[in-house]
Amino acid sequence: MRVLGVDPGLTRCGIGVVQGSAGRALSLVHVEVVRTPPEDPLATRLLTLADALAAAVTEYRPDVVVVERVFAQQNVRTVTGTAQAAGLAMVAAARQGIAVQLHTPSEVKAAITGSGTADKAQVTAMVTRILKLDVAPTPADAADALALAICHIWRGTAQARLAAAVTRARTPGRSAGPAAPIGVRR
Amino acid sequence: MRVLGVDPGLTRCGIGVVQGSAGRALSLVHVEVVRTPPEDPLATRLLTLADALAAAVTEYRPDVVVVERVFAQQNVRTVTGTAQAAGLAMVAAARQGIAVQLHTPSEVKAAITGSGTADKAQVTAMVTRILKLDVAPTPADAADALALAICHIWRGTAQARLAAAVTRARTPGRSAGPAAPIGVRR
Repeated sequence: MRVLGVDPGLTRCGIGVVQGSAGRALSLVHVEVVRTPPEDPLATRLLTLADALAAAVTEYRPDVVVVERVFAQQNVRTVTGTAQAAGLAMVAAARQGIAVQLHTPSEVKAAITGSGTADKAQVTAMVTRILKLDVAPTPADAADALALAICHIWRGTAQARLAAAVTRARTPGRSAGPAAPIGVRR
Repeated sequence: MRVLGVDPGLTRCGIGVVQGSAGRALSLVHVEVVRTPPEDPLATRLLTLADALAAAVTEYRPDVVVVERVFAQQNVRTVTGTAQAAGLAMVAAARQGIAVQLHTPSEVKAAITGSGTADKAQVTAMVTRILKLDVAPTPADAADALALAICHIWRGTAQARLAAAVTRARTPGRSAGPAAPIGVRR
């Protein structure tokens, strides 16, 4: 599966594309950071970002676009810009019929480093190792976008397996039943 | 001048178009409220909204799109959705080369009712009177979008006059000078 992760931001927006599946080696397809100058009008900055996100989705055709979930509590000063960037990423995906998933920063950190409170250096170090990169992706927004994509590939597979196991455990004698176990989305 | 006002919101987004200039009668061109079902996926809702905003800008070709300025402090629970809707309105305008202006809710209330703390009923009553409507626009999001457009037409003209007066007062003897007074945007 191919996943495009977006670390939303107005001044710097990370976009990372990862290919692979849980239990197998993952590979880097693409990584970039879209920057918009703070001195430009807000509408111009948002349009630049919308176009860059649409271009990335068109070029890399991911199966899923994963966006970091924005909380109003996070950082009051920057939350509106972050929320707007996240919204544009979701629209870019939906317009091309691509599924969108949201993950929280702590879900991503926990999936990548084992700790939901890991710092940026730890996340970058693990992303570099997991994708077998020669050089660590910088700035942090690039690493975070890749971490989102990796998190989704790992969590998605783990959740599908868990759901399948739960379904099997709850329906004894149905193992030879219908091909699609209840509770697993196809 | 023709102004398209947007009262941004995810569940209900008001769009109002007003034609006219300060000191003359203003007229209603169009008003609508775009609704997206809360039970739909967020990406689908945002796409519906983006398409509706782009369609309105295309159809009514305003000189300016005016969007309510979103503050993170306003309502923590709904601020991300409101910010995302505002972002989509700005992108819809910028994509078609139309200028974007932001006004705060208190600027709009003050311009329309004389009080920055007026309630929704007062704003709706004044919008109905200013545009000489037979029926008050409902819901409040429709009236608020029209109020934004009216506010912009009135404030824009007042600000241009003030700037011109300040420039004249500061440059005695230059009244017969260059045609474009300094400080007034043409």
